[in-house]
Amino acid sequence: MNPTYQPNSKLDLSFERVVDVPRELIWKAWTTPEHLMPWFCPLPWKTVECEIDLRPGGIFRTVMQSPEGKLFPGTGCILEAIKNERFTWTSALLPGYRPNVLDTTCGDEQAQFFFTATIALASHGNGTRYTATVIHADEAGCQQHAAMGFEQGWGAALDQLVVYSKTM
Amino acid sequence: MNPTYQPNSKLDLSFERVVDVPRELIWKAWTTPEHLMPWFCPLPWKTVECEIDLRPGGIFRTVMQSPEGKLFPGTGCILEAIKNERFTWTSALLPGYRPNVLDTTCGDEQAQFFFTATIALASHGNGTRYTATVIHADEAGCQQHAAMGFEQGWGAALDQLVVYSKTM
Repeated sequence: MNPTYQPNSKLDLSFERVVDVPRELIWKAWTTPEHLMPWFCPLPWKTVECEIDLRPGGIFRTVMQSPEGKLFPGTGCILEAIKNERFTWTSALLPGYRPNVLDTTCGDEQAQFFFTATIALASHGNGTRYTATVIHADEAGCQQHAAMGFEQGWGAALDQLVVYSKTM
Repeated sequence: MNPTYQPNSKLDLSFERVVDVPRELIWKAWTTPEHLMPWFCPLPWKTVECEIDLRPGGIFRTVMQSPEGKLFPGTGCILEAIKNERFTWTSALLPGYRPNVLDTTCGDEQAQFFFTATIALASHGNGTRYTATVIHADEAGCQQHAAMGFEQGWGAALDQLVVYSKTM
């Protein structure tokens, strides 16, 4: 995490896993649209669009598609892109650091909170210690994110990433 | 501005001025609490507290005091601190990139919008071309910021900065 990060167990969600994939491949899978789309959404959801401008201030945009075909676009701003080490972006800002507004058009199915996410990678033997952390403004947002299945969802996506990375 | 910035005249406010102060002094006045407090608020308002952790993710916090003695605290997150060149922070995030929530406790007197501010400095003869830009999520926030007297207020603060910097 960024050295300015102050943990708050009521506002933050995190999970850590050791995977048998070198961190260079995980970095590539997280930061290259063509290598992100195959694994980013737990099946049967799909990621149908992705745009990444890999620098602070740059865009991180995905469009997820539900099994029923409904689209869930999300645009965030990249805050840190430290190669093979740490990737941080936030939904609270748009590209160019412009403040964002919550998209309420998708109703209850859409997240009604902002978050900042960090993927931290550290070498671990021949593999990687992978830590995903999402931080929120208030307990309600954190609880909604947990109830949406943060750990299960991001964990399933990581499983898919591991399988996909061996075909890269 | 950051190269990812996309101007939007309906969402952005900006003013530019050439001042006869070297940019190194302006940088110091903007990024050092003891040198920020004397000029940051147009008189008769005062800045009674200031905290700056000058790095991306770090805190930018001020407490302004109205002539009646009412306090207006504001905490933001620094996004860019490129010495003598560009200083960017946002009220949409707290330190450590944590999303913020709008403070509505001060009612109508308090800003009901988030903004990201950039102070850009460029050498101009023996002085500095000074550009202040604030960007918003929506037109309502931009208009409220304009109605609060953005250009007049930040301009008066700059006048105070110029006077103060000659005593530094």
